[in-house]
Amino acid sequence: MPSYKAPLREYRFLLNEVLDVGRYSNLPSFSDAPLDLIEQVLEEGAKFCEGVLAPLNKVGDEHGCTRAADGSVTTPPGFKDAYKQLVDAGWPALSSDPAYGGQGMPHIVALAWSEMVASSNMAFGMYPGLSHGAYEAIHQHGSDELKQKYLPKLVTGEWTGTMNLTEPHCGTDLGLLRTKAIPQADGTYRISGQKIFISAGEHDLASNIIHLVIARIEGAPAGTKGISLFIVPKFLVNADGSLGARNGVVCGKIEEKMGIHGNSTCVLNYDDAVGYLCGIENKGLAAMFTMMNVARLGVGLQGLSQSEVAYQNGAAYAKDRLQMRSLTGPKNPDGPADPIIVHPDIRRMLMDSKSFNEGARAFAFWTALQGDLLHVSPDEKVREKAGDYMGLMTPVIKSYLTDKGYANATNCQQIFGGHGYIEEHGMSQFVRDARITMIYEGANGIQSLDLVGRKLAANGGRAIFAFFKEIDEFAEAHEGDPEMRPFVDGLKSSRAQLQEGTMWLMQNGMSNFDNAGAAGHDYLNLFGITALAFMWALMAKAALAGKRAGAEPYYDAKLATGRYFLARILPDTGAHLAKLKSGAEPVMALNAEAF
Amino acid sequence: MPSYKAPLREYRFLLNEVLDVGRYSNLPSFSDAPLDLIEQVLEEGAKFCEGVLAPLNKVGDEHGCTRAADGSVTTPPGFKDAYKQLVDAGWPALSSDPAYGGQGMPHIVALAWSEMVASSNMAFGMYPGLSHGAYEAIHQHGSDELKQKYLPKLVTGEWTGTMNLTEPHCGTDLGLLRTKAIPQADGTYRISGQKIFISAGEHDLASNIIHLVIARIEGAPAGTKGISLFIVPKFLVNADGSLGARNGVVCGKIEEKMGIHGNSTCVLNYDDAVGYLCGIENKGLAAMFTMMNVARLGVGLQGLSQSEVAYQNGAAYAKDRLQMRSLTGPKNPDGPADPIIVHPDIRRMLMDSKSFNEGARAFAFWTALQGDLLHVSPDEKVREKAGDYMGLMTPVIKSYLTDKGYANATNCQQIFGGHGYIEEHGMSQFVRDARITMIYEGANGIQSLDLVGRKLAANGGRAIFAFFKEIDEFAEAHEGDPEMRPFVDGLKSSRAQLQEGTMWLMQNGMSNFDNAGAAGHDYLNLFGITALAFMWALMAKAALAGKRAGAEPYYDAKLATGRYFLARILPDTGAHLAKLKSGAEPVMALNAEAF
Repeated sequence: MPSYKAPLREYRFLLNEVLDVGRYSNLPSFSDAPLDLIEQVLEEGAKFCEGVLAPLNKVGDEHGCTRAADGSVTTPPGFKDAYKQLVDAGWPALSSDPAYGGQGMPHIVALAWSEMVASSNMAFGMYPGLSHGAYEAIHQHGSDELKQKYLPKLVTGEWTGTMNLTEPHCGTDLGLLRTKAIPQADGTYRISGQKIFISAGEHDLASNIIHLVIARIEGAPAGTKGISLFIVPKFLVNADGSLGARNGVVCGKIEEKMGIHGNSTCVLNYDDAVGYLCGIENKGLAAMFTMMNVARLGVGLQGLSQSEVAYQNGAAYAKDRLQMRSLTGPKNPDGPADPIIVHPDIRRMLMDSKSFNEGARAFAFWTALQGDLLHVSPDEKVREKAGDYMGLMTPVIKSYLTDKGYANATNCQQIFGGHGYIEEHGMSQFVRDARITMIYEGANGIQSLDLVGRKLAANGGRAIFAFFKEIDEFAEAHEGDPEMRPFVDGLKSSRAQLQEGTMWLMQNGMSNFDNAGAAGHDYLNLFGITALAFMWALMAKAALAGKRAGAEPYYDAKLATGRYFLARILPDTGAHLAKLKSGAEPVMALNAEAF
Repeated sequence: MPSYKAPLREYRFLLNEVLDVGRYSNLPSFSDAPLDLIEQVLEEGAKFCEGVLAPLNKVGDEHGCTRAADGSVTTPPGFKDAYKQLVDAGWPALSSDPAYGGQGMPHIVALAWSEMVASSNMAFGMYPGLSHGAYEAIHQHGSDELKQKYLPKLVTGEWTGTMNLTEPHCGTDLGLLRTKAIPQADGTYRISGQKIFISAGEHDLASNIIHLVIARIEGAPAGTKGISLFIVPKFLVNADGSLGARNGVVCGKIEEKMGIHGNSTCVLNYDDAVGYLCGIENKGLAAMFTMMNVARLGVGLQGLSQSEVAYQNGAAYAKDRLQMRSLTGPKNPDGPADPIIVHPDIRRMLMDSKSFNEGARAFAFWTALQGDLLHVSPDEKVREKAGDYMGLMTPVIKSYLTDKGYANATNCQQIFGGHGYIEEHGMSQFVRDARITMIYEGANGIQSLDLVGRKLAANGGRAIFAFFKEIDEFAEAHEGDPEMRPFVDGLKSSRAQLQEGTMWLMQNGMSNFDNAGAAGHDYLNLFGITALAFMWALMAKAALAGKRAGAEPYYDAKLATGRYFLARILPDTGAHLAKLKSGAEPVMALNAEAF
């Protein structure tokens, strides 16, 4: 049975020592969340995730969700009770708006909570996760009336939410959608059509489900310019807040999937369902996209979460399993063999994961802090930069963290040998669950296009140049410190290659857009590694400071892990740069018929 | 529903144009297999695989194998009939010894057949695959009496075979095994113990199952020096060849696995089962290892097979699925969107797979030809070099082809977006099935250790130096040809880095064995890329010759695919070299407690 231990020491290190969140205590939301309160919240969260959610992870995988003939869906054994505990403890309200009953904590705290939930039970975590997406959409785009009606119970978690975009013939290309909305005399709409791949689309956890649905109002323009966003509750809500009639939306099927079996992925059939316009007519796609930025960070974090929990179980197995002797002589001479953690190739797989997990977590936290500043900073310059960074980093976090999360989960499964391939130890589930993160909320190829096609060029490259400047200032400030030198040198080398790739894109991507498309994947990886190199430099600085203040072995391990990153991950930058600079020609040379 | 089309044109290109197998027509086994006969055999094989086995692949995944209370096992619907057709058509006998009813075809032909079987239905293919392993073990190590008794029906496929190595506490470290063999007065042994992860361990396809089992004879030395190999038939075989009493071996459990559900992976309990010593007492491990070399090539091929079939289905989907417009303007202006194959990032994933599939297949065929020469060449020098190459290339083929096979299957699944994550299109199965190939027959980490710890240093590095020399001779002969120049340059650059890595290992691996262990993974990848660069140079030469002889578009596509390999795969060599040269220190720096 796999287990999970929340990385509380890592959270403390990041929030306190690396990001120094305390310096924002004069800002809204931070002012109500001093560090000791945050730590207390995360400790409680850790208990819940470790004790309640993690033991249900394998149960969810084995049982999955079942649909009855009437379209109702039963979640795996234990999920309903766990969800009730989650609601009773108030977790869904953590970072929500106090105006609707939320606790108003900084998003960075909610991020740590989300990681713990996803590591302990990713499929379960998607139910409150999607609800938060629906909350965001209504909070940002809904009228006051809609907000008053739907937000309080989404905040408590009494109701859950969904996002309905995909249809059978359109996933990425939402302009092709066919679901239609017919205006009614009373200002409501009637929604008809089929949506697929709807996570948490139907279940038995909550008394109502608030579907956020994109559809085309009759007569609206074709393509993406004619898409509107609607609220379609499973049960209509009366004026007094009580539940009314069942609405015309039914689960037609639960998909058989590679993983996340504990989450109900539904085909939802809308048949003349009552819907309420959320936001402005024909501006639904923009509304969906604001929501998706938050969701994409969350998906990146899911990738990390599976790498983390797979790593923890891989490390535990490697310390326990006795097999062969160390190449440098027995390390466990009294036993029949040495624990396999003595073998360098086992270490390599563990260190790949560990150095990624810690770097990627720092990157996600550093970015989430920008997300908080974007909302609460009184300084317009700070808000502008935060917005730029959020836009620029989102596709990188979504893709890089999920690609590597899957690769690391696979590596940690490998540590188990044949025991990793059977389902018993749960390692297969981490890989299978991680796999979806590379696909949903915009497949990773779309993220790379978002990065090179939109985010990079926005405002004349303002975001990336700010990032380079921040790196340069850090490098200049610390390269004189001999202990920092290797980290600064690594960062500078990676940054130089990222700049070279950026320049290549600016020179070649506009003259032939296929050059940008062909370079996207490698550019994104080059970006991801550079971002992690920056994070490792920041962490090294904090670890050296911590070490000077005391001899905690934590800091030595941190520095050694950072050095592993420099020696064993950073060299990939050169390959990515060479590939992206080879341009579109080799990629596009063949006729379609040759495939 | 996924489909499969055997790459017959590729086989013809490799056998005829690249490897020129016709030049060996004076040698045994080749003399009875002129090229037109080989092609005819492969065409028949293709029909069988495409028409009979491929349609059962998903059925096998969905139904799996079921064990009844008495320990009997039922294979998925259709498997039994397909197996009967396989036997009736004589396929199991393809490359077996004519002395026991085999057809004596070259191994390289059997290799092509194996790839087709594995691509169309990997789980099914393991039943005859394991039988062939058992055949090899008995053929090489058994007494005449044992051969006469067991080989003919393994050759026809009336009986199947298994390999029993792993026990719960020992996989890689077979010296720890506990299964014991007690000598009897009549020269037989009684075998007791538990074996796990036994592929094709129990089923309903054949009338008897011949288990090859390693066990320790009572009183034998501890560790690997006291391991012997036994034949333990499911049913005892009477002197007249008829089946006698049921032997004391029972399937205790079928494992729940991530994939290859169509194959029964069994826990086998041996309780006083009658066994027959196969080969020499206490030399069982060596006997197992000769057999495993053949099996490891087969597993490498399985990795390739899943990349190939996933690629075929990914390409078909990419040509069919309409989504978004090309970055360079509509390519399907009359349709609602362009087929996604116009998008560079989709191409990248397809081309990664295609350039790997064709290069890896060439590498496997080139190596298999060495395997044939090892057996049939009258020239001792040729046999020596062939044996060296087989030893050197086996771990590379096993690991590199399976790591990349899994990565490519994952990429081709990615092309399907959300439709790849649901089981309907079969893409998830290719990934889940491919995953085991990185683990069984020696996990890939063990392969890298075999390469850097044994194969490289054997006979003073004779094998690797012969390989360098062969590359150098080829480069020198063809670098004057401007059309060959990019392929020769790429090959030389990769070869130089492989040599640098080899020298680093020779200088640093002996002084600290952990340096070798830590470098193994990257060295093996560097080797794999260099081997494929050599294959691409050989294929480019053949394609240029073919092109001069006629204007078949096949050759242009081949050359373009090779150029993609140079631009987009080859750059990884630098990263692998840098990582391996960073040595063991960063890998081993942490105490075990820090994980």
